[in-house]
Amino acid sequence: MTTLHPDRLLPADAGERAIARELYEGVRSLPLFCPHTHIDPSVLAEDRPFTDPYEVFVASDHYVLRTLISRGVMPAEIGLISRDGEPEASAREAWRAFASNWHLFRGTPTRMWIEHQLAEVFGTTTPLGAETADALFDEISATLATPEFRPRALLQRFGVEFLATTDAPHLPLNAHEKLRAGDWGGRVVPTFRPDAVIDLDKPGWPKAVEQLGEVCDVDTSTYEGYLDALRSRREDFIRLGATATDHGPVHPHAAWAPRETIEKLYERRQTGALEADEVELFRSHMLMELARMSADDGMVMQLHPGVTRNHDRAMFRRYGPDIGADIPHAVNLVRGLDELLNNFGHASAFTLVVFTLDETALARELAPLAAHYPALRIGAPWWFLDSPGGMRRHREAVSEVAGFYKGAGFNDDARCFTSIPARHDMARRVDCAYLAQLVAQHRLGIEEGHDVARLWSRDQAREVYLPDRR
Amino acid sequence: MTTLHPDRLLPADAGERAIARELYEGVRSLPLFCPHTHIDPSVLAEDRPFTDPYEVFVASDHYVLRTLISRGVMPAEIGLISRDGEPEASAREAWRAFASNWHLFRGTPTRMWIEHQLAEVFGTTTPLGAETADALFDEISATLATPEFRPRALLQRFGVEFLATTDAPHLPLNAHEKLRAGDWGGRVVPTFRPDAVIDLDKPGWPKAVEQLGEVCDVDTSTYEGYLDALRSRREDFIRLGATATDHGPVHPHAAWAPRETIEKLYERRQTGALEADEVELFRSHMLMELARMSADDGMVMQLHPGVTRNHDRAMFRRYGPDIGADIPHAVNLVRGLDELLNNFGHASAFTLVVFTLDETALARELAPLAAHYPALRIGAPWWFLDSPGGMRRHREAVSEVAGFYKGAGFNDDARCFTSIPARHDMARRVDCAYLAQLVAQHRLGIEEGHDVARLWSRDQAREVYLPDRR
Amino acid sequence: MTTLHPDRLLPADAGERAIARELYEGVRSLPLFCPHTHIDPSVLAEDRPFTDPYEVFVASDHYVLRTLISRGVMPAEIGLISRDGEPEASAREAWRAFASNWHLFRGTPTRMWIEHQLAEVFGTTTPLGAETADALFDEISATLATPEFRPRALLQRFGVEFLATTDAPHLPLNAHEKLRAGDWGGRVVPTFRPDAVIDLDKPGWPKAVEQLGEVCDVDTSTYEGYLDALRSRREDFIRLGATATDHGPVHPHAAWAPRETIEKLYERRQTGALEADEVELFRSHMLMELARMSADDGMVMQLHPGVTRNHDRAMFRRYGPDIGADIPHAVNLVRGLDELLNNFGHASAFTLVVFTLDETALARELAPLAAHYPALRIGAPWWFLDSPGGMRRHREAVSEVAGFYKGAGFNDDARCFTSIPARHDMARRVDCAYLAQLVAQHRLGIEEGHDVARLWSRDQAREVYLPDRR
Repeated sequence: MTTLHPDRLLPADAGERAIARELYEGVRSLPLFCPHTHIDPSVLAEDRPFTDPYEVFVASDHYVLRTLISRGVMPAEIGLISRDGEPEASAREAWRAFASNWHLFRGTPTRMWIEHQLAEVFGTTTPLGAETADALFDEISATLATPEFRPRALLQRFGVEFLATTDAPHLPLNAHEKLRAGDWGGRVVPTFRPDAVIDLDKPGWPKAVEQLGEVCDVDTSTYEGYLDALRSRREDFIRLGATATDHGPVHPHAAWAPRETIEKLYERRQTGALEADEVELFRSHMLMELARMSADDGMVMQLHPGVTRNHDRAMFRRYGPDIGADIPHAVNLVRGLDELLNNFGHASAFTLVVFTLDETALARELAPLAAHYPALRIGAPWWFLDSPGGMRRHREAVSEVAGFYKGAGFNDDARCFTSIPARHDMARRVDCAYLAQLVAQHRLGIEEGHDVARLWSRDQAREVYLPDRR
Repeated sequence: MTTLHPDRLLPADAGERAIARELYEGVRSLPLFCPHTHIDPSVLAEDRPFTDPYEVFVASDHYVLRTLISRGVMPAEIGLISRDGEPEASAREAWRAFASNWHLFRGTPTRMWIEHQLAEVFGTTTPLGAETADALFDEISATLATPEFRPRALLQRFGVEFLATTDAPHLPLNAHEKLRAGDWGGRVVPTFRPDAVIDLDKPGWPKAVEQLGEVCDVDTSTYEGYLDALRSRREDFIRLGATATDHGPVHPHAAWAPRETIEKLYERRQTGALEADEVELFRSHMLMELARMSADDGMVMQLHPGVTRNHDRAMFRRYGPDIGADIPHAVNLVRGLDELLNNFGHASAFTLVVFTLDETALARELAPLAAHYPALRIGAPWWFLDSPGGMRRHREAVSEVAGFYKGAGFNDDARCFTSIPARHDMARRVDCAYLAQLVAQHRLGIEEGHDVARLWSRDQAREVYLPDRR
Repeated sequence: MTTLHPDRLLPADAGERAIARELYEGVRSLPLFCPHTHIDPSVLAEDRPFTDPYEVFVASDHYVLRTLISRGVMPAEIGLISRDGEPEASAREAWRAFASNWHLFRGTPTRMWIEHQLAEVFGTTTPLGAETADALFDEISATLATPEFRPRALLQRFGVEFLATTDAPHLPLNAHEKLRAGDWGGRVVPTFRPDAVIDLDKPGWPKAVEQLGEVCDVDTSTYEGYLDALRSRREDFIRLGATATDHGPVHPHAAWAPRETIEKLYERRQTGALEADEVELFRSHMLMELARMSADDGMVMQLHPGVTRNHDRAMFRRYGPDIGADIPHAVNLVRGLDELLNNFGHASAFTLVVFTLDETALARELAPLAAHYPALRIGAPWWFLDSPGGMRRHREAVSEVAGFYKGAGFNDDARCFTSIPARHDMARRVDCAYLAQLVAQHRLGIEEGHDVARLWSRDQAREVYLPDRR
């Protein structure tokens, strides 16, 4: 499967496939608009070359690591660095372990992304496997050393027109300042992700809030000052091109709490830990404050609730976040977002993009809410459901209730830099396959199909994340 | 897309489509049996002509209004009358606003229903859009003024053989009495929907219960009198042809409470408000009382729980119910219906039809319960899930567990009068497409397919709502 | 439909069907590996002939009984023996009632299994129906009297290479000892299912625990003795070839409770009933103890939580278990299995197979958990979701997240002896149809498709239930 089939992911039925091909031809070469990634901005600021395929494909993507570990590969074998100093494999050894277990990825989107990258980005025809591991390691490492494979050159070649990274407000934005100073400003922008200064159960919270005060020169010893700092820091982000914020609360609960209560929690947390329900109360209140700030400054508010983080506490302690198993759980958006939507659901400058990993909430809750509140947009299929089947089910669950115009466009959520084009390509193929079925069943005209394919591939994300009002 | 494709909604695969066509031919012209609608009976009693397409397509259907508002169209622009006297658009202006936003309905069943009506009911070939809005407004208004488009003539032409409206027990049934007196008796009948006199949190409850006492001349100042009035009023409905009741509780909970407790709640509510849990306790108890009444008088009990009504409180206050966002939430039918099914699940004269908007409950709870309790029937896909995809998922979730014979037949849930044939036609097409796949995969014989298509298109609803025992 | 179509259940699309056929040809004749059945081992130990089709198809399968009762057939008509001595129909009469209602099974897997058996196992061409009921009864009864239809001969003919029954630890294992003594040892083995001695709310618990002590000669009057008895009894099972345990808790909750608390509950239950939450606490603690035992002795732990048993209490009282309506409910695996997975999720000798009837938990919870914890395997579609659509949805929900290698292989969960080949054949067809789509959409190579088809049809179950380490 090293040669990519031109019709991959298109419908099996010949009639549907012909329509899907036509639709796909109309969008395959559109620029890539990336409003939500986990790319490290310093890679671009410094235009730092990548060194080897292990770094590119394995180390950068904890879903790859997870799949290997779940079948008994030891973390050290694939290069994971434990906090207790266990010796880990070299990049080449870890790459071998990955290549030997390549069959484990059959059926997953990861497999299709990596095959896409090998063929289209790296232009190799060597199939991935235990026998070819060393040869591929050498071949790709050599390729990565050429100027054409420096991060900025790749971004250019990929046709990325806009790329937002994810950034904490209490840390400096050096990389983005450097990018802004050069000729890359406006195309690569930060996203305001304040979880670290909102979640009172994070051990580093007092330190983070102090740092937040320092980076924007505001006294954060009081709750009032903390709010000022957040507002001020949002302006810094906006100056660097940011158009969105990002929030990953455990539960989708947002509700005002009495100001006095919140001030007391804020104060108490500076010197000690709080109870779980107090942490939740503060987070829920802050989502309201942050929605208000977004309604004021126009930054799109992205919400992706419903994940139990670090389910595996021993792995988390040894190897840190992302390796500790983040597992979705059921959400109740109807009750959880009640107060937020009742307060800001019609605010004219406000856009709320809600993602969910609980597919049951799509047709039952999220689509009907979005089919009512003007401010609400339905986020793209997210995370490990950014798979062909997951995307298809998402479109099917949402479109009949909310139509095609209440989404927020595609976002690739990329961690692996060279996977960006593969992700957009997969989404475009899956969307065209879905639209082709509607056309084949005479539910949509072919011209309408082209319109919607362009909308989903690029225009809708631009409309939501780069609105004219900015 | 103004010309309707004869194969719309049938499978894309040529082999499956040929089978689906054959099945559909066998049911396309069957009479329409409509056991559950929200048609205003006075329209039929007075045979009052409709005036314009805004009234017919937009004002009558809050799903149309919702879709427009959710994309930023202001309520006044589409003719919504606010309680604070804001001036609203004229019918023609509102129709223009609708026509200019017609693309928002792509992918929704509403779009297919309206196209069906334009082509099949109104016989127009003018495509809907901003440029044609005025011409269409005039054309359809003129058509509606002809005698062939009076409500009764339309009903005749549509082939409607039975149509149940939804009626409150505390209000007079003048329209139905008039229909009964004429030659329409038996074909258009009321449905007993007592929510207004059951839900103790409705502000108008004390008044409604007083009115209930008046219309049936029973003293409702005591709980005993209230039960007598309900029983007596059910007899009035039955005399006018009613064969079913309808209930939309927030949660699917039914359980006996101590008589004394219920009597006290009933008494206290007459002079003041109750707590939320008291309201729920009363409602849950009343579902048991109403099930007992149904087991006694044979009226089919329809239950569609699981909706958070008027989620958007400001819109509700300004524009009233239906505009306030009714959003489904998750339900637990296993525990919620435990006591009701244990009491009446085998009662010989009792039929309980349960609908759910929580699709997750279909295969997991509703189908297994129906595959056990003789009294339980699975309601048709409901509400905004009465979409091609929603219906298909419903059939797939339910049929393998409960077979084809535990449903309650199709119901159109129509609000928009002229949409009735479009809804039945869509359901017949979707059902035939599903059955065609079973035939194509050699899971069902073609003759069996014809049998089941007829059952689902008409016979099953007749069997459930017009049983021989009546 | 008495002649089975060779392409039944394969895709309707011609291209996909050709691929599916090729894949299916590669697995259709593989031996049957049956790690989880409800076959009575004494039937095999004594090689006792079956008497008539009522016994084989109807009486042995409460899903057949349930479907009939749910449409108004009286339990006595189909031969159910009530505890209050109501006279029941003879086998022939009950078979007639079943045959007359054969249409009720359209669309269900039961119908396909029975048709498979009639054609392939019994070689009859007589179609099932009211008119043929007596003829078929006689024909099949005669066939069953021949030596070729004795249970052991059938097992041989079916190609069953391994079959595990389900057995209570407090009862003697005479049948298995007899099988072990003969030439059938190793092929037919018991499964350790201790629910009866774990669930403190079972009325027979004190007696069962006493019996447990007796069969393994350990004093179970104390909690310590009880644990010893369980461990000792597990060794007996292992000696008879058992490789797995089986647990059906109401909720998927497992957590250590203080030893002292558990000992007190154990003691108190010997003389009286406990509260519901105490029963749940004990069960939840015991799942931890049993996981620890599995991590020690290597028996695969099978968990299928989330069923409300005997929902219909009157039917349960009259006709006993299985007739009382077992209905699935929603589960929370993320929280419920937290402690168990944190304790044993990486234990090297431990395998936990989790089944769920709550399909919503598949993509959201079970697949992500399995894609992380090495010890966790995803159970096959279970119970009445062992239907073509249920299996397909299962594959689609799980594969993109966890790949193809974290399952536990197929198991037939058979109660009806002669249905075993039909169940495996259906699963193989459905899996090949799914894989054919992936191949047709160029997501999987055809050779990979063959590999995975073999894995799912047989090899994965062998790997999990007969690991080399045993």
